[in-house]
Amino acid sequence: MVATDGRPAPKGESPAFDLSTYLKGRQAQVEEALDLSLPLIYPEKIYEAMRYSLLAGGKRLRPILCLATCELAGGTIEMAMPTACALEMIHTMSLIHDDLPAMDNDDYRRGKLTNHKVYGEDIAILAGDGLLAYAFEYVADQTQNVPAQRVLQVITRLGRAVGASGLVGGQVLDLESEGLSDIQEETLNFIHTHKTGALLEACVVCGGILAGVTEADLGRLSRYAQNIGLAFQIVDDVLDITATQEELGKTAGKDLIAQKATYPSLWGIEASIAKAKELIEAATTELKPFGENAQALIAIANYITTRTH
Amino acid sequence: MVATDGRPAPKGESPAFDLSTYLKGRQAQVEEALDLSLPLIYPEKIYEAMRYSLLAGGKRLRPILCLATCELAGGTIEMAMPTACALEMIHTMSLIHDDLPAMDNDDYRRGKLTNHKVYGEDIAILAGDGLLAYAFEYVADQTQNVPAQRVLQVITRLGRAVGASGLVGGQVLDLESEGLSDIQEETLNFIHTHKTGALLEACVVCGGILAGVTEADLGRLSRYAQNIGLAFQIVDDVLDITATQEELGKTAGKDLIAQKATYPSLWGIEASIAKAKELIEAATTELKPFGENAQALIAIANYITTRTH
Repeated sequence: MVATDGRPAPKGESPAFDLSTYLKGRQAQVEEALDLSLPLIYPEKIYEAMRYSLLAGGKRLRPILCLATCELAGGTIEMAMPTACALEMIHTMSLIHDDLPAMDNDDYRRGKLTNHKVYGEDIAILAGDGLLAYAFEYVADQTQNVPAQRVLQVITRLGRAVGASGLVGGQVLDLESEGLSDIQEETLNFIHTHKTGALLEACVVCGGILAGVTEADLGRLSRYAQNIGLAFQIVDDVLDITATQEELGKTAGKDLIAQKATYPSLWGIEASIAKAKELIEAATTELKPFGENAQALIAIANYITTRTH
Repeated sequence: MVATDGRPAPKGESPAFDLSTYLKGRQAQVEEALDLSLPLIYPEKIYEAMRYSLLAGGKRLRPILCLATCELAGGTIEMAMPTACALEMIHTMSLIHDDLPAMDNDDYRRGKLTNHKVYGEDIAILAGDGLLAYAFEYVADQTQNVPAQRVLQVITRLGRAVGASGLVGGQVLDLESEGLSDIQEETLNFIHTHKTGALLEACVVCGGILAGVTEADLGRLSRYAQNIGLAFQIVDDVLDITATQEELGKTAGKDLIAQKATYPSLWGIEASIAKAKELIEAATTELKPFGENAQALIAIANYITTRTH
């Protein structure tokens, strides 16, 4: 959890920028907003189940990416906070459903029992559905001081990122590929650009849309996000092999046991780490036109290759 | 499947209005729009699963209610069709998830195998998620010639109708009440106003919002929908006891076997039918100010108490 990996700061990143402090501050803002977004009302059981997973901690990287991009492009935290919360609701729903016995059958997530282990499968399915529906409602109903047309664009992007054209499609291919020994790099790329990448891209792109960036800048932001998304997944795969269960907060070595194809299994650990660093370089290059304003996004990109959990 | 129940046509319903022809025409339009809304693309398996349930037939009452209300209020079919399709996507996702082994564990739906019996539990969960996300995306992206602010209101209403404040909340209470012998009428009302009622209300209310009705008219439409929603559920409960499996296209007598509290179990069959008729009277009364324009909605209300499946 350090701000840099010791390399000289890339162009555009101010040496004075303290990522660790920045992330802590934003994380606290997001935690507070998430807590307020979902009050515990009748019937309490479903709200409890939704809150259990939504407020289970985590780095809140997705909402932070959304807020940071909106600020980079001249918008405010307030404009982007409902979308930032919605992104975390969507991410949480995908974790709850992925952990179900019919899917990855995981008992632990972020060091806590998974939703269905606490509330039962039926409630866990419904808690996911509830979070997904609420994400869209929350953006539509709570976004302030943004033209309605932009909010509709954000909702379109969120839907695309989570549906069959994004996360759901990636998960389907992931399930189909399990146990197969001859997964091609193309298939693995499809899985990850959809399962992890699409939502990360939506975080960045939605932040830009809310602030009203040009199409050209949206393209740059989108490529930045695609690159860090893939790097993030590669690092995740590497950590699954090299980190301990305590560090991960979830079962370690699970991919190996499940015989899941991963980047390290295709390329080896060293080459995977090198590829992740290349992707991060490409990502930060896209942000050069934004100058000093991009320092948070650049620092976050660099952080991805140095994280240990 | 007849247009009236033989009673004199209530005020405001033109005797010349042929509901059966009207429903058939609208149903065909909705079927075509649904078919076009969801092309079969890569990865085909998930789109196949989504299309399997979305295009499994049914009366398409929800989309038709939305289209009819939009027209009643001076809007067009085109303005409301994306929302009408979204309502059917949401309804379909709720059926897919309700049928799962962890929920109602149903093997048949509309005379066909349920989604998880054909595609497996994992894909069925994801098909539901995909349809839910796509519903919101489709409204945001495809609605034409409607001010963006109204479309955001529609998305807010859809989210509320399907989330913990609506359908999901109703389903949670329904699951909790199963097998309990002392369900109060209040609880049963909560279950049905949320599990069935909220989405039916959204159909009507969203049609009105798209057409730009006044707050007062929105209140009338909302009360109409609440009344027919409850009547619809009561008739559903009665049919579960009196109809055969072939007529229903799903397992008959299931509520009795599952010891689910129903209106007939609280009130008896005769009193339940009388109550449904009262609710329909109240519903049609709300529409008097709309005059001739309301004939479709009035005929649909009357049809509810006479349907046999």
